[in-house]
Amino acid sequence: MEFITNPDEIEKKSFEIITRQLGDQPLGDNVAVIKRVIHTTADFDYCENLVFSPDVFERTVALLQQGVNIVTDTQMARAGINKRVLEKMNGSAHCFVDSPEVAQIAKERGVTRSATAMEYAVRALSGPIIFAIGNAPTALIKLHELIERGVCMPALVIGVPVGFVNVVESKELIMTLDVPYIVAKGRKGGSNVAAAIVNAMIYEAAKRNEESEK
Amino acid sequence: MEFITNPDEIEKKSFEIITRQLGDQPLGDNVAVIKRVIHTTADFDYCENLVFSPDVFERTVALLQQGVNIVTDTQMARAGINKRVLEKMNGSAHCFVDSPEVAQIAKERGVTRSATAMEYAVRALSGPIIFAIGNAPTALIKLHELIERGVCMPALVIGVPVGFVNVVESKELIMTLDVPYIVAKGRKGGSNVAAAIVNAMIYEAAKRNEESEK
Repeated sequence: MEFITNPDEIEKKSFEIITRQLGDQPLGDNVAVIKRVIHTTADFDYCENLVFSPDVFERTVALLQQGVNIVTDTQMARAGINKRVLEKMNGSAHCFVDSPEVAQIAKERGVTRSATAMEYAVRALSGPIIFAIGNAPTALIKLHELIERGVCMPALVIGVPVGFVNVVESKELIMTLDVPYIVAKGRKGGSNVAAAIVNAMIYEAAKRNEESEK
Repeated sequence: MEFITNPDEIEKKSFEIITRQLGDQPLGDNVAVIKRVIHTTADFDYCENLVFSPDVFERTVALLQQGVNIVTDTQMARAGINKRVLEKMNGSAHCFVDSPEVAQIAKERGVTRSATAMEYAVRALSGPIIFAIGNAPTALIKLHELIERGVCMPALVIGVPVGFVNVVESKELIMTLDVPYIVAKGRKGGSNVAAAIVNAMIYEAAKRNEESEK
């Protein structure tokens, strides 16, 4: 059997297949995000599921071009983010869920480490933050609370936890806020989806930086 | 709004919903794997997609109970594996894709790092190996070659790469072999799916070890 083995060629060919299958749907600015999520999941449902606040793609790409902190709810989402490209633009990716301090606070309060890690991130980091939540609805619910209380104003909330309990509701909560968001409506999502959304915008930001250096 | 916040309760409730939605389908031994993959993806397609070689669940659980090496193709899959529970049973999880030696060999030969990392793992590790491939069809194609050449006989091949190029074919290749396998037929899969399959069997192995210690 003959296989394409060049990684760049594989990716190019994959995006051609996705583009062909999507057909003539008007996907606007957010097309790069939608295609990369489908590339990551092979699930065309995301063409319908993904919801974007106005101008969120352009605003986020501009922010990434200058370097920004990204906070994930899981190590898995952090592992999926292309940190090499991100760090070249002076950005960085954090996940505080395994911090001993977070574990202790969570235990004392009887809440999840994921939720506690959000509050911890707001205190630990300065400057704008992109939150990428692919797993824990409790992290999203905590972010909603922090935003409503005026404790933080994220540069972007990526709300794509997956699952059956609290998940749909936690995403709906984020969409009620006046905050930049990208949400996967319904039950679907995941750490891989969160990372794919981040990477789509990282790659666009890096491309623009390269072009402006020419 | 009222949310369940206890993580154990969330998981229990999630599995109840999945069980209810699956209904009376006879899923046999592999039900724990199927349910955990659906828990991870919220995608009931996996009820149809997942294919298991005979007795693979029982054989793998028995192996995990005694400690076994797991090799993943991505850091993301490795990040998703519950290493705390795995290591308690003297198992460990490895990913060699970022090793400088692997990068150098891959560059010299003009092949992917994912494929090279498989050969590297076979040389670096002793004892039985479970390969969990959630991303790179080239890793699966390399494993097929190594098995056919008699270079290695994995204890299990989890073949669940996702995507549009080489993916379907690479999975079909594995299913032609006389080797224990769990494969997600078709385009779907992912690092999260690979980790979920591993975790389902890790949890069963840990439960049995605990019961036998009582």
